[in-house]
Amino acid sequence: MNKRVITLGEIMMRLSTPGHERFINADQYNVVYGGAEANVGISLANWGVSTAHVTAFPSHDIGKAAMQYLRFAGIDTQYVFFDEGRMGLYFLENGAMQRSSKIVYDRFDSVFANFDPAKINWEEIFDGADWFHWTGITPAISASAAQICKDAVEAASRLGVKISGDINYRRNLWQYGKGPLDIMPELIAKTNLVIAGLTDFENCMDIHEKDYISACKKAQQKCPSIQYISTTYRDSVSASHNGLSGILWNGEQLLESKSYDMTHIVDRVGGGDAYMAGLIYGLLFLEDQQALEYAVAASVLKHSIPGDANFVSVEEVSQLVKGENVGKLLR
Amino acid sequence: MNKRVITLGEIMMRLSTPGHERFINADQYNVVYGGAEANVGISLANWGVSTAHVTAFPSHDIGKAAMQYLRFAGIDTQYVFFDEGRMGLYFLENGAMQRSSKIVYDRFDSVFANFDPAKINWEEIFDGADWFHWTGITPAISASAAQICKDAVEAASRLGVKISGDINYRRNLWQYGKGPLDIMPELIAKTNLVIAGLTDFENCMDIHEKDYISACKKAQQKCPSIQYISTTYRDSVSASHNGLSGILWNGEQLLESKSYDMTHIVDRVGGGDAYMAGLIYGLLFLEDQQALEYAVAASVLKHSIPGDANFVSVEEVSQLVKGENVGKLLR
Amino acid sequence: MNKRVITLGEIMMRLSTPGHERFINADQYNVVYGGAEANVGISLANWGVSTAHVTAFPSHDIGKAAMQYLRFAGIDTQYVFFDEGRMGLYFLENGAMQRSSKIVYDRFDSVFANFDPAKINWEEIFDGADWFHWTGITPAISASAAQICKDAVEAASRLGVKISGDINYRRNLWQYGKGPLDIMPELIAKTNLVIAGLTDFENCMDIHEKDYISACKKAQQKCPSIQYISTTYRDSVSASHNGLSGILWNGEQLLESKSYDMTHIVDRVGGGDAYMAGLIYGLLFLEDQQALEYAVAASVLKHSIPGDANFVSVEEVSQLVKGENVGKLLR
Amino acid sequence: MNKRVITLGEIMMRLSTPGHERFINADQYNVVYGGAEANVGISLANWGVSTAHVTAFPSHDIGKAAMQYLRFAGIDTQYVFFDEGRMGLYFLENGAMQRSSKIVYDRFDSVFANFDPAKINWEEIFDGADWFHWTGITPAISASAAQICKDAVEAASRLGVKISGDINYRRNLWQYGKGPLDIMPELIAKTNLVIAGLTDFENCMDIHEKDYISACKKAQQKCPSIQYISTTYRDSVSASHNGLSGILWNGEQLLESKSYDMTHIVDRVGGGDAYMAGLIYGLLFLEDQQALEYAVAASVLKHSIPGDANFVSVEEVSQLVKGENVGKLLR
Amino acid sequence: MNKRVITLGEIMMRLSTPGHERFINADQYNVVYGGAEANVGISLANWGVSTAHVTAFPSHDIGKAAMQYLRFAGIDTQYVFFDEGRMGLYFLENGAMQRSSKIVYDRFDSVFANFDPAKINWEEIFDGADWFHWTGITPAISASAAQICKDAVEAASRLGVKISGDINYRRNLWQYGKGPLDIMPELIAKTNLVIAGLTDFENCMDIHEKDYISACKKAQQKCPSIQYISTTYRDSVSASHNGLSGILWNGEQLLESKSYDMTHIVDRVGGGDAYMAGLIYGLLFLEDQQALEYAVAASVLKHSIPGDANFVSVEEVSQLVKGENVGKLLR
Amino acid sequence: MNKRVITLGEIMMRLSTPGHERFINADQYNVVYGGAEANVGISLANWGVSTAHVTAFPSHDIGKAAMQYLRFAGIDTQYVFFDEGRMGLYFLENGAMQRSSKIVYDRFDSVFANFDPAKINWEEIFDGADWFHWTGITPAISASAAQICKDAVEAASRLGVKISGDINYRRNLWQYGKGPLDIMPELIAKTNLVIAGLTDFENCMDIHEKDYISACKKAQQKCPSIQYISTTYRDSVSASHNGLSGILWNGEQLLESKSYDMTHIVDRVGGGDAYMAGLIYGLLFLEDQQALEYAVAASVLKHSIPGDANFVSVEEVSQLVKGENVGKLLR
Repeated sequence: MNKRVITLGEIMMRLSTPGHERFINADQYNVVYGGAEANVGISLANWGVSTAHVTAFPSHDIGKAAMQYLRFAGIDTQYVFFDEGRMGLYFLENGAMQRSSKIVYDRFDSVFANFDPAKINWEEIFDGADWFHWTGITPAISASAAQICKDAVEAASRLGVKISGDINYRRNLWQYGKGPLDIMPELIAKTNLVIAGLTDFENCMDIHEKDYISACKKAQQKCPSIQYISTTYRDSVSASHNGLSGILWNGEQLLESKSYDMTHIVDRVGGGDAYMAGLIYGLLFLEDQQALEYAVAASVLKHSIPGDANFVSVEEVSQLVKGENVGKLLR
Repeated sequence: MNKRVITLGEIMMRLSTPGHERFINADQYNVVYGGAEANVGISLANWGVSTAHVTAFPSHDIGKAAMQYLRFAGIDTQYVFFDEGRMGLYFLENGAMQRSSKIVYDRFDSVFANFDPAKINWEEIFDGADWFHWTGITPAISASAAQICKDAVEAASRLGVKISGDINYRRNLWQYGKGPLDIMPELIAKTNLVIAGLTDFENCMDIHEKDYISACKKAQQKCPSIQYISTTYRDSVSASHNGLSGILWNGEQLLESKSYDMTHIVDRVGGGDAYMAGLIYGLLFLEDQQALEYAVAASVLKHSIPGDANFVSVEEVSQLVKGENVGKLLR
Repeated sequence: MNKRVITLGEIMMRLSTPGHERFINADQYNVVYGGAEANVGISLANWGVSTAHVTAFPSHDIGKAAMQYLRFAGIDTQYVFFDEGRMGLYFLENGAMQRSSKIVYDRFDSVFANFDPAKINWEEIFDGADWFHWTGITPAISASAAQICKDAVEAASRLGVKISGDINYRRNLWQYGKGPLDIMPELIAKTNLVIAGLTDFENCMDIHEKDYISACKKAQQKCPSIQYISTTYRDSVSASHNGLSGILWNGEQLLESKSYDMTHIVDRVGGGDAYMAGLIYGLLFLEDQQALEYAVAASVLKHSIPGDANFVSVEEVSQLVKGENVGKLLR
Repeated sequence: MNKRVITLGEIMMRLSTPGHERFINADQYNVVYGGAEANVGISLANWGVSTAHVTAFPSHDIGKAAMQYLRFAGIDTQYVFFDEGRMGLYFLENGAMQRSSKIVYDRFDSVFANFDPAKINWEEIFDGADWFHWTGITPAISASAAQICKDAVEAASRLGVKISGDINYRRNLWQYGKGPLDIMPELIAKTNLVIAGLTDFENCMDIHEKDYISACKKAQQKCPSIQYISTTYRDSVSASHNGLSGILWNGEQLLESKSYDMTHIVDRVGGGDAYMAGLIYGLLFLEDQQALEYAVAASVLKHSIPGDANFVSVEEVSQLVKGENVGKLLR
Repeated sequence: MNKRVITLGEIMMRLSTPGHERFINADQYNVVYGGAEANVGISLANWGVSTAHVTAFPSHDIGKAAMQYLRFAGIDTQYVFFDEGRMGLYFLENGAMQRSSKIVYDRFDSVFANFDPAKINWEEIFDGADWFHWTGITPAISASAAQICKDAVEAASRLGVKISGDINYRRNLWQYGKGPLDIMPELIAKTNLVIAGLTDFENCMDIHEKDYISACKKAQQKCPSIQYISTTYRDSVSASHNGLSGILWNGEQLLESKSYDMTHIVDRVGGGDAYMAGLIYGLLFLEDQQALEYAVAASVLKHSIPGDANFVSVEEVSQLVKGENVGKLLR
Repeated sequence: MNKRVITLGEIMMRLSTPGHERFINADQYNVVYGGAEANVGISLANWGVSTAHVTAFPSHDIGKAAMQYLRFAGIDTQYVFFDEGRMGLYFLENGAMQRSSKIVYDRFDSVFANFDPAKINWEEIFDGADWFHWTGITPAISASAAQICKDAVEAASRLGVKISGDINYRRNLWQYGKGPLDIMPELIAKTNLVIAGLTDFENCMDIHEKDYISACKKAQQKCPSIQYISTTYRDSVSASHNGLSGILWNGEQLLESKSYDMTHIVDRVGGGDAYMAGLIYGLLFLEDQQALEYAVAASVLKHSIPGDANFVSVEEVSQLVKGENVGKLLR
């Protein structure tokens, strides 16, 4: 396997209450580090893909701990920058039954949000790279972060690196004076694989369709670089019980995946990132339908693992796709 | 919101095994403090109702810890009394699957059980109060506790404070020489909202009916003060999976609530108290049907929260009633 | 109750990741001690049967801790031997949802595997014993362990002690130059209660049938000592959700048990051993059909308890058989 | 006891690594809430003094948890304000032996730092108050925080409320364009009890003396309101072993306390705040020398308690002053 | 080694706060089971002495857990009785530095306190026994407990079993209408090894001497059965740092032990019981001076071990007596 | 900084009881991975030195976890080999006071012990390397491990890579038919920096001197490649309190370090490896005396950190050498 993927994005400290405790009762928090794009990178690294993540951390001990977490997870950290400032963080309360999970963000004004785009040499970073992944969170954070994302997408496009983008529209971000329609269209225009639901099409591409296939076709008309468009369907019976499936438009047809019934969910954060990673992996190494099945199966397994990141193997995902060794006791 | 509720009752230290460990294997216990009536008070305090709890604790550090727990939960503790003696406690083993949860009580001879009724000035306590809540546990503990409960009910009745009583018949209590029929009828006679199932009607009101509406009508004939009677239906598929709904007789009709399927139960202790609190809240601020729906939804959410007390907000309960934001990931 | 059971087998330290953590993320392991045969012994000891376990531990502090664990669980440890060497161990990762549980064994070259058969005086051990239990794991470990098992089965048979054997074929063992067909047939020939599925019949008895009753009959023809043959049916919907039932051939008919739906599984390791213990208990004290029902109910309860061993009471198992007090809150 | 104390200041979430783990190895943090001034308030509340704390928290669940922590600790929280924004926090790594403890702050741009001074009605807050306490941290945070502190000091002075100020100069703060000499002198000028070491005199009062008594006299010349000046001497043998004593200038003489040898330190954060609280308590209820001894003894006990706050009783402090029941096993 | 020791006494559940947390902050308690006499028994069992403990537990799951703890620790539990009622318990807050450790007892009205003396057959229990151990706690609990103790001492004396008694005067007990002088003298009169300090002599033997040797001689005059009298000297520098030594009067001379400096104490509860056990072991197997040294060394090691019981080996104690392998890293 | 160090050796899983629990009471173990040589490598990686470790792990999940731990700690893992087999492990019980720490090894027959020397290409590994470090543990494990060590030392010597060797004689190893004098001399002969005490000189170099300088001179006569010889002096007052200093023979004089008093030791395992790493770092970048001081200070700090590895910075070590910021609270 000789593919190399570059991911870009902010990483936050995640502070989650143990078990099903509420914030109000917690006197301990579990700590990991995560971000939508790094979560994708960790999946890929676990699957043997050479993966480097581009981000910026504070130059104190907590920033160093975050960097070592990435290294632990198999990420190439040579493009992790350090600077004065704070680390974004988020608090997570894990729901159960009818009670929803809750996230309280505290990510504004981070080192990443303030990082100087001029310090990043994308030509060097993309040397030898096959794929670049970004999400709509980065341009939503700050003007400089948007600039970093634009620089990256342009360089990747210029250098022939495949590009994926998870639109991931978040209303609570975008507080620096720009809106998604100011910035997203030009990023999406250079992207080859887009993750977007119908509201993402509306908010970030100004495409207003009620039908997914129509939206996909419109998007491809606007942006001929787009080869694939995908999204997941999630049926939230309760915080502990979801249904999950995915669809993939490959320019010709809308492929649909097997649908999974996920009872006894352990941690649903990062489920979308696991899907994204699965799709990148699948489109690098598998046929379209298999890529989609791989992505959904990867996402399902994520829901059984505490933390943001999906520490599963290719073999485990592939077996779930084939329905082998599902929920057994393997000796 | 300017309502004030007074609750009365013993509070025990709850020592529960972590996770799903059995008593036999536990070398650690989780500690909270709870009691049927204080659990009601904590719910109400969480919902912004001014709530004072009347109880007695030992005057040592453990008693002080219990008091600080109430204060933490938002309870006005000015009517918490301290005296020489012991604190009641109970051990809880959290069941799973077909295995039941188990409670071992060690509550006899507590400071509360021995507390002198003369030390409590109910006139002062009920000054400004809108509602008083008692349960059938208090008169079952000791002669003096029964006296305290009688004093309170009489004072509340005299002062025009609304009264709710959760009959909650417990065969293992009532060991001081009196039976429920010696005491409960006169307490119930002054109560406006009664929580009772058919066996409670039998044991505590000497009403023997097979039909709930008939029992309610008999109860109102005997006790014209009663305005509302309610109970829950629980279907115990397993310790981890219950169904739950509630009914409310308002003197005219028997209202029925939505029914909930609760899989992945985290902690079912206090579920009834959460319902009781929801009903009080609902009857203070909502229409009858909405009050009942609020009560059941509050109780459902309790099952997702470790401990006796129901740390949820009015917004969370109301959303569950409306079926909004159920089991999602809220950012 | 005046029955005495002897069990024989290796006991390992079990190191399991907490909650649903993967090996890769664990920086703590929970420790208990278990082995297929000792797990059976612990069940029986919990049910009031006098039970001694024959095994060998290293003569260092960890071996002593294992011995004290057996003593804690009610096992007579006078036939636990100590010698120089290592203790076998296994690592367990508890699955969830579609993700399987995983066991990594590290049991080779243990004190038990190397223990000298000549040091065990089976005449003395079986004095006063009613039942002897072995599994197919012991003869699979090493030549000397196979010899110990053979000595035990011969002595028990000679002394009129009833014998049960759980075939439990494990492909990863049997690495000392012999295969199951070299050794198992003569052990099975002296056994009265055999636990075996169709593949066990093939691998260990050279009986190739597609139908369970035919296989049972063939086995009895080959080995007239066999009185009972049994196995369980497990339907692995997911790691958190299994179906379970059992069948028992008593030489005349194939009895079938009630079938249980086990959602919210806590720990499925030891489920088969709990069934085995239930069957021994049942055949000692109950009718055939009741014995089978007792065995399945015991196994179901095991799935709700962390660890290898089934810390439940006769009363709890019997109530589940009768469908009483299932998944309730017992006060 | 009928004294009332008002404290003002930011409260942060404190995230500390368990045991003696370094940041790099922590995957769990212990959580409490603390701030120099609230720590003083909690001590006083524990000692039966009526204490209200003025601060601002974010209006999300984490802010609510912080408020409930204060309530738990006995603080009157009616002057806790809620607003949009973030909560300051700090990370603590507990040192041991020669290895220092480390704090990483992440407190900029908090709700408190941005809180509007006009929203606070000091006349109302000081109604019935005997004492007001501030520290040099508040004016160092932001222009608006400095304004709040100024408003409070002026109101207290005007209303005849005694004022204490802990100078507590922190070089890393003061980043909003003002320096300590721009603001501190006018605050100190109205203060009656000042905690200051020689470098505090230099940085915040422009008093450059090598001798403590001379510095005290100079300070009183500049600011005739000052009645008491005090500081502690700490001898850091190691992170686990410190010496501690205090001195108190009462305008006439320099009182010196007993000196304590503190080996086996559990948590030294908040040691200075415990001293400050002890001095306020002492000057409210005791003679000068006894006040000083009480303050040092309170501070010593703090070092044995995990967290920022000093959960000890008046009786415990008084016994240490008298050398009674020191380091015993009290039954 | 073929000695058998019988111990008698109540066993409580011990609930201790983790680390150095105060009661007020604890939301978890560590659980072990202990009692002065059982602690002695566990030491002896660890040292290979056959030891049975006579006590009574409640016949519910918590009582069973306590019994299994004894079995784990190597105690013969055939004389553990079960009855309706409660289990005594105590809460422990582990001190540090100048802050004392605190115990809050909740032991009144336990199964043991109410146990019927007629149910115990001392002739059977003492069959084959060499030594019987009691403490002054048992006769202080209740009239029936005092009777049990008297029955045991008389039977042991009659049957030629050596008797040790730890006077252990506790002012807070003795609440059933009798005082120590009503009961202790006749128990002590039959005892051969007495642990007593000067205040114990006063309170329980009415011997008022300022000099230990004089007191010992007086005691022997009054009670010619007494052969040995002993006590420890403890110098409480702080809760984390004590000095410890022991003295032993053997009827001829007052032997003095080595003195130990114990810094970094982990858990001092049970230190006296470890000494007591060491003395019994020493007087069974060693010369007088060696017995005393063994006792003190055993007690020192106890201070390094969490819990009531002293899980150390004969080899470890003996090495400390000889000053070998002290505080090393043994591979 | 552009130095590169290669370390070689087995890495074990370390399972340590939490706090000061004994093996007998532990139902949880803390897990890290360590080995004498990898511990050296981790120190150097923390200090910014490019470090690769050569070892072999089992090709299952536990082996992968060990590898990720190395990656987390900053080690280049490209020369970590994977093969069928087991991972060595050791159990650690952390002592306190007079009670020693205990290690129980379970390391025989590991993947590393059985690894084929022919699979390692030392020419490639040493490309660009400045230093190679080995210890006397590797040749003591097995014939093939000894061969690997010999190959490495020869290649390093041939390629002009500096060599350090920590003699570290362990009597319990060397069980494969060779003794230290069969193998160590030829390894030592090519080594430039040797860590050895007087008994190491005897056992591994056949040098019998009572005086350290004489021994050093003899060693240099025998092995002219040796440039530096060093050892530490440890004074074990108790498990919680040690003294520590070091000496360094540089061919001309015996340098002596400052001596440190280490009270309140957290974890002394790895203290020697931290010293070794400090010496390598010092001799790469500092003067001889400073190198020695750096090594001892690094070792002192290790004793304050849980685990085998020394997660401290160059700045922290250097400050301790200078006596700056020792045992403070750094904000």
